[in-house]
Amino acid sequence: MSSAPLPPAFLQALAEGFPEDFLTREPAELAEYGRDWTRVHTPAPAAVAFPRTTQEVSRLLALASAHRVAVVPSGGRTGLAGGAVAARGELVLSLQRMNRLGEVDLLGNTCRVQAGAITEAVHQHCAQHGLTWPVDFASKGSSQVGGNIATNAGGVKVISYGLTRQWVLGLQVVLASGEVLELNGALEKNNTGTDLRQLFIGSEGTLGVITEATLKLAPLPGPQSVFLFAVPDVAAVLRLFREARRAPLTLSAYEFFTDRCLARVQRHRKLRSPFEAPSGCYVLLEAEGSDPDAVETWLGSLFERGLVTDGTLAQGAQQAQELWSLREAISESLAATGLPHKNDISLPVARLEAFCGELESVFAQRYPGWEICLFGHIGDGNLHVNVMKPEDMDKAEFLAHTKQADPTMFELVRKHAGSISAEHGVGLLKKPYLGYSRSPGELALLRTLKRALDPLGILNPGKVVDVG
Amino acid sequence: MSSAPLPPAFLQALAEGFPEDFLTREPAELAEYGRDWTRVHTPAPAAVAFPRTTQEVSRLLALASAHRVAVVPSGGRTGLAGGAVAARGELVLSLQRMNRLGEVDLLGNTCRVQAGAITEAVHQHCAQHGLTWPVDFASKGSSQVGGNIATNAGGVKVISYGLTRQWVLGLQVVLASGEVLELNGALEKNNTGTDLRQLFIGSEGTLGVITEATLKLAPLPGPQSVFLFAVPDVAAVLRLFREARRAPLTLSAYEFFTDRCLARVQRHRKLRSPFEAPSGCYVLLEAEGSDPDAVETWLGSLFERGLVTDGTLAQGAQQAQELWSLREAISESLAATGLPHKNDISLPVARLEAFCGELESVFAQRYPGWEICLFGHIGDGNLHVNVMKPEDMDKAEFLAHTKQADPTMFELVRKHAGSISAEHGVGLLKKPYLGYSRSPGELALLRTLKRALDPLGILNPGKVVDVG
Repeated sequence: MSSAPLPPAFLQALAEGFPEDFLTREPAELAEYGRDWTRVHTPAPAAVAFPRTTQEVSRLLALASAHRVAVVPSGGRTGLAGGAVAARGELVLSLQRMNRLGEVDLLGNTCRVQAGAITEAVHQHCAQHGLTWPVDFASKGSSQVGGNIATNAGGVKVISYGLTRQWVLGLQVVLASGEVLELNGALEKNNTGTDLRQLFIGSEGTLGVITEATLKLAPLPGPQSVFLFAVPDVAAVLRLFREARRAPLTLSAYEFFTDRCLARVQRHRKLRSPFEAPSGCYVLLEAEGSDPDAVETWLGSLFERGLVTDGTLAQGAQQAQELWSLREAISESLAATGLPHKNDISLPVARLEAFCGELESVFAQRYPGWEICLFGHIGDGNLHVNVMKPEDMDKAEFLAHTKQADPTMFELVRKHAGSISAEHGVGLLKKPYLGYSRSPGELALLRTLKRALDPLGILNPGKVVDVG
Repeated sequence: MSSAPLPPAFLQALAEGFPEDFLTREPAELAEYGRDWTRVHTPAPAAVAFPRTTQEVSRLLALASAHRVAVVPSGGRTGLAGGAVAARGELVLSLQRMNRLGEVDLLGNTCRVQAGAITEAVHQHCAQHGLTWPVDFASKGSSQVGGNIATNAGGVKVISYGLTRQWVLGLQVVLASGEVLELNGALEKNNTGTDLRQLFIGSEGTLGVITEATLKLAPLPGPQSVFLFAVPDVAAVLRLFREARRAPLTLSAYEFFTDRCLARVQRHRKLRSPFEAPSGCYVLLEAEGSDPDAVETWLGSLFERGLVTDGTLAQGAQQAQELWSLREAISESLAATGLPHKNDISLPVARLEAFCGELESVFAQRYPGWEICLFGHIGDGNLHVNVMKPEDMDKAEFLAHTKQADPTMFELVRKHAGSISAEHGVGLLKKPYLGYSRSPGELALLRTLKRALDPLGILNPGKVVDVG
């Protein structure tokens, strides 16, 4: 696939076989639909197509195959790895017009939706029935279900609900050839050979285009208790995690952040810490419906045993929201108070402490004065590592340094059997580093799958892995 | 692959490169290791290999590839679809010597085990730490972890824990070539391209041999309440299910059986029904830790609203066990009191009522006098359909009839978008019927995967799908 213009015969076939508003080549739209939330690559798609039906997607891909046109499937484009970027003259296939929400099935707790449905719209649709699709994160107001599934999206509720993969019963997928597959329907159990859904979940549009999904729904959670704890260091965060998992409560979130994150949140958002004395690390713990007496006893024992240095339990919804704000404002505050270089990595939970210690010491040695802001879904082993540009350093110099620093960190990730992308995916940004988390044998198998499913290489080419 | 004897050069290579006790060709062992819990095919393997290490498995498969020897991976052989049957002169690869249990990781709640570890041994190993691997069924005393994963095993706890797929963090897999892949390690989150683990989970040994796994563990459940309800029919079973899902309790099992099942259990096991009057259907509901007052109110309302005709809550562990016995003794009692023809199917929960009605009426019309015993994990849409041989019918005639009756039922399964194998897999027994649950496009994709991963066709050939 090159960045050659779209073949005239392909454009003619589209003009003849599809509605007038099917395609746009208007520059502002090309710029908009050619990029995601990353701002690294300059968007340069050749055109954007807006199908309304699976049948249109199918006919479009059959034509793209016939004319060897590279296609970038496109959801809400809230990705952070460049998976939906079209920078090489591709055709963007936007699912946004396919946003129908089916009836909620109250017997099976399922709902069939089209891929372009907005995540938050699905939440609202299901909440009327006391149900939810428990895939939840900051970008839910614009992210789409198809993109959530294609990237196996994570978020703040993974510790209790798991990743998106667990909340997809059925998938309708269009292959590169245009063939439409209906996979698994609304079945909980179906052991009839390899589960083909799993090929497409998390494949970032490189193996097929997701057009519809039957979502598995969960009951809306009951009232939650929100705690904030102060602890001295990462080791203490993990000791508390172990206690919390055995406590008389059901964890629904276990988030952590360091004092550096909090300081920037306070600077930017003027939020107050609930604690008088600062501490090295903070833990936000959310838990569902538990026996208040047992919880109080447990809380007391945390102080007695020196597991926390301070702690507070939110009284009411407003205070709970205030505590959550401290965590949720971090990304925004880092960006507002400096230039962060971001990585989203994961480690086996048991390796987190050693990893964090080595990371700090390697960076302190090689890059003295650099500020590392650590936060994340530590209960899942997921760390967001943000390195802040030193104030007196030029931006270009900083970026050159981070390009060198990333492999240093990924080397540590590999040493501790972690992943260079916990939930953000690979896309374009992490592709050069995939070998830190995947062996040559795995990379070969990923290429084998790509060749088997998309032999002409028209689906999101150049993303995740390059196929020779 | 044919049933030709093993090539002498292959046998010589084994004799030279492996321990003396690596291979057996002793007739009694061939018969034992060549079959699973099905008794349809006559076991006829050429030999059985007992590797002790992954490295031995790898060298064995490399040799098998070089000499085009068909290999049947073999766990506890408790399968019910013939997936581990070796009836055509294959080499059986038994994992039973690879049964090492690693240390329980109490921070990550994980445990690394070899594929030949017995499921129940894993339970006991983890229970010491208040944890469990929530894959649980009647055959756990002899089934092995590798087989559980290769068949994506189900069981009685799927409604709260999901299938085996959800409880596997890492997989070590040996490909047909002998290449060893380490997939995902101990990571909860790892979005670095298609999740390759999923290829092997549920593939019944046709794409690779699972040699080790990092299991995800759950806290041992707290005290459970066990209820038995009497309701008139399947429609009432489903009405009650809908209520139960919205009740102030967390379901951990929702099993049902018909009066015909209960009658045979009473006949065979001399167990007593807790109810005075018989009823069309029974529901066994198990639920975890809930507010007793709220539960009592809920129970009362079930009677008031006519949702159940009778019901009992087990007082204490012994009574709970007695209620569970009524459900768990069904399979054994059907076999002891007659000749059941078994099928394990699933439907979207919302289609169960219509399906059961149509099944009864089709069978009543075509096979008057046949007794259908229905039971199963109805909360997951999973029905075990047992057709009993009429007492005055010859066995051969009955089997000939069931061979005709199966497609009739599978046609109904297809009509209602169900699966011809909910949890038992495909193996040899369901292969002829796979087309009722998989479209031509899906079958083609299953074959594409098989060819891509096992190009020489040495891994469990002839199981799940035939590759031309």
